[in-house]
Amino acid sequence: MTRFFVAPEDVKQDFMVLTGENARHAKVLRLKNGEQVLVCDGQGREFICTVSDVSPESIGLVVMKEQPAETEAAVKVSVYMAFPKADKLEHVIQKATELGASEIVAFPSARCVSRPDEKSLQKKLERWQKIAASAAEQSGRGAIPQVRVLPSYKAALEQAAKADKALLFYENEQSTTLHMALQSSPYKTVSLLTGPEGGLEVSEVEQAMEAGLQVCTLGKRILRCETAPLCALSAVMYDAGEF
Amino acid sequence: MTRFFVAPEDVKQDFMVLTGENARHAKVLRLKNGEQVLVCDGQGREFICTVSDVSPESIGLVVMKEQPAETEAAVKVSVYMAFPKADKLEHVIQKATELGASEIVAFPSARCVSRPDEKSLQKKLERWQKIAASAAEQSGRGAIPQVRVLPSYKAALEQAAKADKALLFYENEQSTTLHMALQSSPYKTVSLLTGPEGGLEVSEVEQAMEAGLQVCTLGKRILRCETAPLCALSAVMYDAGEF
Repeated sequence: MTRFFVAPEDVKQDFMVLTGENARHAKVLRLKNGEQVLVCDGQGREFICTVSDVSPESIGLVVMKEQPAETEAAVKVSVYMAFPKADKLEHVIQKATELGASEIVAFPSARCVSRPDEKSLQKKLERWQKIAASAAEQSGRGAIPQVRVLPSYKAALEQAAKADKALLFYENEQSTTLHMALQSSPYKTVSLLTGPEGGLEVSEVEQAMEAGLQVCTLGKRILRCETAPLCALSAVMYDAGEF
Repeated sequence: MTRFFVAPEDVKQDFMVLTGENARHAKVLRLKNGEQVLVCDGQGREFICTVSDVSPESIGLVVMKEQPAETEAAVKVSVYMAFPKADKLEHVIQKATELGASEIVAFPSARCVSRPDEKSLQKKLERWQKIAASAAEQSGRGAIPQVRVLPSYKAALEQAAKADKALLFYENEQSTTLHMALQSSPYKTVSLLTGPEGGLEVSEVEQAMEAGLQVCTLGKRILRCETAPLCALSAVMYDAGEF
């Protein structure tokens, strides 16, 4: 069933109207009266609707049934990623959305080569949020992960530390595995923090430990900065019983 | 320690010589006499060597110690992927190598849009193998995964079925999870088979079951064809105790 995301304030109980980009998308798909579509408010609610009115500018939908989105993971995973170079963050946003992350948070760290300035950031954030929305639609999610940017490494640590499992992946960690970190106690929320191309500095890892994060390894191979968060996210979803 | 891959026949017991691309790489790194490097035969053996002779064309190395490659996973995972469009296969080869796959096998299936012809295939295979070699070097692996191409879906099924766990991921499978498939018995070898952009046809899934593959889900979200094998591979490595 085709899936459309609408703003929560556009959700109506009996009849909804798709406009703008959604209407254009519906036209491309040549939706006809009587066909069923799924409308999501992007926050976990879904509505099975029947197309009832196709006009050039909008698509009218009769709401048949409301249900909680079934494709959202029970575990809430936040991906904290130091700004990488080039389009790697876009790659991670797309893939992390498919894999079920609840948010993607970018932040600067000492060895970050890429540091978007304030001016370009607003535009980039809009672009990143669109990538998340599009990946959420394609992968059939019931919610669009939020993409956020934090001004400092310290802020990232403070926020990441709030999760049941606040984990930092470090290539020099040899003893604590992700498995050990996850098995020690039940969890509903997880933060996964990874460094940029050049890795995190030792002092940054120490700072994270002080902030309450647990340092783990993702195995004996060195993963690229865009591979590590997705590998960790896949493993957490597996561990949490998602598949 | 910098890592060089040499052909198994170039491995010598006491003294080795880096030539060609390896020598150029060593020059770029400005290796000096007395520095230590790691030489891998790409098949699981490693040699700690000391640079003893830097000449414009070659680098002489004294072999100090031989050891089994410590970064190779105990579990052997073969990634079977239907030909995807564009450069997605290159992406999967690079990432699967980092994540520890022992081989990547591409094959045609009914809905494959991309089907490289015999003529272009040889060149592509060389390119793909180079991507695997480069990713193996960067991620510190002790072996370079082989990249292979099979002529038919049937051939892929026959070969994939030989593993202890021969798994096919299908978006319409709802009951058997990867976790259930892995937990049912111990395993040392795993095949992970995934379809192209348009998915596998029902008849292909049936054919796979007849060939002895188990059909599993990777969860409630629809993963892109390049995301599914890497998600599954990450989860298998996690389950096998790699991290």
